[in-house]
Amino acid sequence: MQAQASATPSSPRRYHEVETWDMEVDVAIVGFGGAGACAAIEAADAGAHVLILEVASASGGSTELSSAEVYLGGGGGTRVQQACGYEDSTENMFNYLMAAGGDLSDEAKVRSYCEGSREHFDWLVAMGAPYKDTEYKERAIMAPTDDCLLYTGSEKCWPFKDRADPCPRGHNLEVEGDNGGPLFMKILTERVVERGIQVEYNARALTLVVDEDGEVRGLVARIDGEERNIRAHQGVVLCAGGFVMNQEMVKQYCPRLTAGSVPIGNPGDTGAGILMGQSVGGALINMNEAFITLPFYPPSSLTYGIFVNAQAQRFINEDSYHSRIAYHAIRQTGKGIYLIVSADDYEHPTFLNAEIVGTGETIEELAEEVGLDAGMLRHTVDFYSEQAAHGGDPLFHKSEQWLKPIKPPYAALDCTPGSGVIYAYFTLGGLDTRPTGEVLTMDKSVIPGLYAAGRTTCGVPRNADGYASGMSVGDATYFGRLAGRAVAARLHRTQVVDES
Amino acid sequence: MQAQASATPSSPRRYHEVETWDMEVDVAIVGFGGAGACAAIEAADAGAHVLILEVASASGGSTELSSAEVYLGGGGGTRVQQACGYEDSTENMFNYLMAAGGDLSDEAKVRSYCEGSREHFDWLVAMGAPYKDTEYKERAIMAPTDDCLLYTGSEKCWPFKDRADPCPRGHNLEVEGDNGGPLFMKILTERVVERGIQVEYNARALTLVVDEDGEVRGLVARIDGEERNIRAHQGVVLCAGGFVMNQEMVKQYCPRLTAGSVPIGNPGDTGAGILMGQSVGGALINMNEAFITLPFYPPSSLTYGIFVNAQAQRFINEDSYHSRIAYHAIRQTGKGIYLIVSADDYEHPTFLNAEIVGTGETIEELAEEVGLDAGMLRHTVDFYSEQAAHGGDPLFHKSEQWLKPIKPPYAALDCTPGSGVIYAYFTLGGLDTRPTGEVLTMDKSVIPGLYAAGRTTCGVPRNADGYASGMSVGDATYFGRLAGRAVAARLHRTQVVDES
Repeated sequence: MQAQASATPSSPRRYHEVETWDMEVDVAIVGFGGAGACAAIEAADAGAHVLILEVASASGGSTELSSAEVYLGGGGGTRVQQACGYEDSTENMFNYLMAAGGDLSDEAKVRSYCEGSREHFDWLVAMGAPYKDTEYKERAIMAPTDDCLLYTGSEKCWPFKDRADPCPRGHNLEVEGDNGGPLFMKILTERVVERGIQVEYNARALTLVVDEDGEVRGLVARIDGEERNIRAHQGVVLCAGGFVMNQEMVKQYCPRLTAGSVPIGNPGDTGAGILMGQSVGGALINMNEAFITLPFYPPSSLTYGIFVNAQAQRFINEDSYHSRIAYHAIRQTGKGIYLIVSADDYEHPTFLNAEIVGTGETIEELAEEVGLDAGMLRHTVDFYSEQAAHGGDPLFHKSEQWLKPIKPPYAALDCTPGSGVIYAYFTLGGLDTRPTGEVLTMDKSVIPGLYAAGRTTCGVPRNADGYASGMSVGDATYFGRLAGRAVAARLHRTQVVDES
Repeated sequence: MQAQASATPSSPRRYHEVETWDMEVDVAIVGFGGAGACAAIEAADAGAHVLILEVASASGGSTELSSAEVYLGGGGGTRVQQACGYEDSTENMFNYLMAAGGDLSDEAKVRSYCEGSREHFDWLVAMGAPYKDTEYKERAIMAPTDDCLLYTGSEKCWPFKDRADPCPRGHNLEVEGDNGGPLFMKILTERVVERGIQVEYNARALTLVVDEDGEVRGLVARIDGEERNIRAHQGVVLCAGGFVMNQEMVKQYCPRLTAGSVPIGNPGDTGAGILMGQSVGGALINMNEAFITLPFYPPSSLTYGIFVNAQAQRFINEDSYHSRIAYHAIRQTGKGIYLIVSADDYEHPTFLNAEIVGTGETIEELAEEVGLDAGMLRHTVDFYSEQAAHGGDPLFHKSEQWLKPIKPPYAALDCTPGSGVIYAYFTLGGLDTRPTGEVLTMDKSVIPGLYAAGRTTCGVPRNADGYASGMSVGDATYFGRLAGRAVAARLHRTQVVDES
C-alpha cells in the first residue's frame, strides 16, 4: 500500500530505483480505445512485442461511446466520396481544417492528416470496418441510417465556405442508428486479439519510469490489485483519453465548461495520461479548449430559427455545426440564450431537453414571457425576416437554404448555458506531440521513449468553433497508427538487468 | 559551450551530477523586478543569505516599465482611502476580486490578498513609497497628477457593481505623470542594497538543479559568460516575469493575442521561469489568458460613444475598464470594431493611434464609409440614443453618468484588432502556486524548495475581462513578500559537500 501511495502520475519513478521488472515488453500502450488499438496493431505489425494496459474490464474507451464517425477525405476522395460524386482534394481538405483550427492549428498535424487520410480510410476498411457507398443528405449530427457519407461540420457555412469548397467528409459505419462505436471497437478489438497482442484489463497505469537521461523506460501499473513494474524496451504510448471525467482538472483548465451539463467520455478519462506525460516534462497545450455542443438539431427545421442572446441580438449563423453554436453561446455577455422560431417550423428537438419558455402571436408577448427587451427583439426578428425574405443575411451570412422570415405565432426555446439544458462536452487539450506521437517538451525537444495519441494529446481538433463530427475518432485512430509505427521503429534497448 | 548547450530551462540538472558548487546561498531569487525585490527583502529580513540573479544590467523588470500603481484596500481602508472618505471592507474587496476573476478565480489567493492588503500598503510606505492622501476623480488609466487614489477597474460598472459596492483601490505614487515605475523600483532597489543582499547582474538563470526526491536544490546560471552552479540551501524563488516577449510561446499558448500589436514587458519576459518550473513538474495554469487593452480613454468623453462590431451591434457597456472592452473586442465574430461617437464628444485619444474611418451627417453616410450595414447601424444608434435619453441602457447597463444620445455629425474610430491599432498585452498564465509561493504539481502537491511570484505565476489577476490597473504590481509585490518569508522559514539543508 505504501508503494502505491507514492506511485502517482505526477511523481515519475526513477529507473535505478526499480528493483525488479515484473514484465518486459517492447512497447507498452496505456488505454484500449480507438487510439490504443490502432497503435497496438501497427506496432505489432512492425514486429514489436506489445502490451496494452486497460483500466476497464474491456476494450472500448470513449471511442466505443461515440458514433465512431471518422472525418476523412482528400487525395481525390475516399472510395465512398468518389462513389457519391465528390472529388475531394488534399489541399481543399487542408484549407478547411486550417480554417477550422484557426490560430490554434498545428499545421504539421493537419498536413499529415490530410495527406494520409485516404490511405487511413482504406486501412480501416482492410481492418474490417464496413462503409456503404451512399450519402445521407439531411442536416444531422450522425446518420440515423446505415448510409455512410454526410456533412458533419460547418463546411457549407460562413466563414468556412469562403476558405474551402464544401465537401462532406463524415464517414458513418454501415449500421442503423447511433451504434457505430461498439461495432468499430469490436472490429478493432478482434484485430488486436488475432495478432496475439498481450492485453491486461483492470490494469491502471500509475506512473512512468524515467532514467537519468530523461528517457522513459517503462511504467508502473496496478494489475489485479498488485503494483507491477513494466519495462518497455522501445517506449510507452499514452492513449488514455482526455480529462473530462476529472472535475478538478476541468474546473482548473476549462472552467467555462462547467456551464455544460453532460460530460462525454468513459470513467477512465481522468487525465492520468496527461499527468504522466507532464510529469516527465511533456508540454500541455490548448488545455482550455474543448468540444462543447448544443445538439439542437435534428429536427433540421429548427435551423430556420434564430439564436439570440440576453441582449436579444443574434450572434451566429444558425446553419453552423451545433458545437460552433455552443462555443459562441457560452461566451455571450449576460445570461440567456434563446432559439426563436416560427411555430410552423417547430418540432421538439430529438436530443435536446430545452423547454419552450415563451410563445406569442406578437413579439411583445414573446419578449415579455422570455424576459427580453421587446424593442430589441422586435428589431432583431424584423431585420432578419426582411433580409431573409430577399435571400440574404448581411450580418452572419447564413446560407440561403435556411433563410425564411420568422412568422407568428412565435416560440422561444431556452438554451441558456447552466440552466440544465444539455451542453455536452469533452476536452481537446493535452500533450504536445509531433505527428509521429513523440511527446515534446515546452522547448519542442523530444522526450525519448514517450509517445501519445488520441485525447491524451492535443490533436487536429482544436476547439468547438471549428469542430466537425468524426474529427476526434479520425485523429485518434490516424495518429494512434503513426505512434505505433514510430515506437516500433525505435532502437531496441539492450536487455541488461542493471545498467546503472 | 557544450555545458551551456545542455543547460536549457526544460532540462533540469540532476543534483548528483553537479561536481562543484560555485556559490552557496540560503535563498536564490531569479529576477529583480517588483516580485523579486520584495521576496529578497522579506527573506533577508528573516535572516536568510539571499542572492538575486538578474538577467539585465540593472534592477527594474517589468514593474519599472509600468506605472507601478498598486490595487489595495479592504480592512476599513488604506490610509489614503480613509483620508479620501472611503471605508473599504475586506469582504467588499474580496467580492469584487472574485467577480473580476470569475470562474478562473483562486479563492485562497484572493482571500489572502484582501486580508493582507492594508498591511501591504503600510509596508510599502515603510519601504519609502510616497502616496499622497488625495484622490484623482477623472476616468483615467493612471493619474497624470501626483494624486494617489483612483478608480482603475470596472468597480462602478455592470455587472461588477451588482456584486460589490464600488470603491476606488488604485494607489498611484506621488509623482507627476506616468513615472511611477522607475521611482517604485528605485526605492525597492535601495532597500535591497542597504540590506547587503547579494545581486548578480547580467546573470541568466539556465536551469534548476533537482535531486532524486524531486527537491529543488539550486540552479545553474550564466554569470559574466561563465556557467555557475549555485546551491540554495533553503530554496529558489522564480520571479522572472511572464512570457510576453517569447513570441513562440505567445503563439502556442494565447494565439488570440497576436491580434494585439504592443507587448508590454521587458526583454527578459521570455517565460524562462515558467519553463524551469514546469521542467520539475510545476503545473501551468491559465496559460491562454492575458491582459489586453484598447486604451481609448482619455479623453473620457469618448466613453459617451458606443462600440459596435462587424454586425453593427453593441457588445459591451462602454464605461467598462479599457481591458474589459479589449477582451470582448478580440472575441467578436467577423472583422471590425468601431467606436461611434458624436462629433461634439470627439477628442483625439491620448494613447490610441486609432483613425477616423467614417464621418457623416447621417448614419447612412457613416455606415457606407465604414462598411457596416446601414439598417442595422441605424437601429443600434437609434435604440441606444432613445434609451439613453431616458437614462437607461437595457442591454448592457452602462452607467447613467455616461449615457446621452448620439447625435450628428457622427464619427467612427477604427479599433479593429489586427488593423494596427494599439492593443497592448501581457500574459497572465504561469505556475500554479499556493499563496506562500510554493509551486504545485498538477495533483496539487508541493515541489520542495521551489517558490515563485509575479507573472511567472498565475496570480490574482486572471484575465482582461476583470482586470484593474494595479492588480499585477499589487499581486507581484504582495505574493513576492509571502514567498520570501516562506522560503526563509524553510528548514536549512545541512551543508555537506556530497550527500549522494
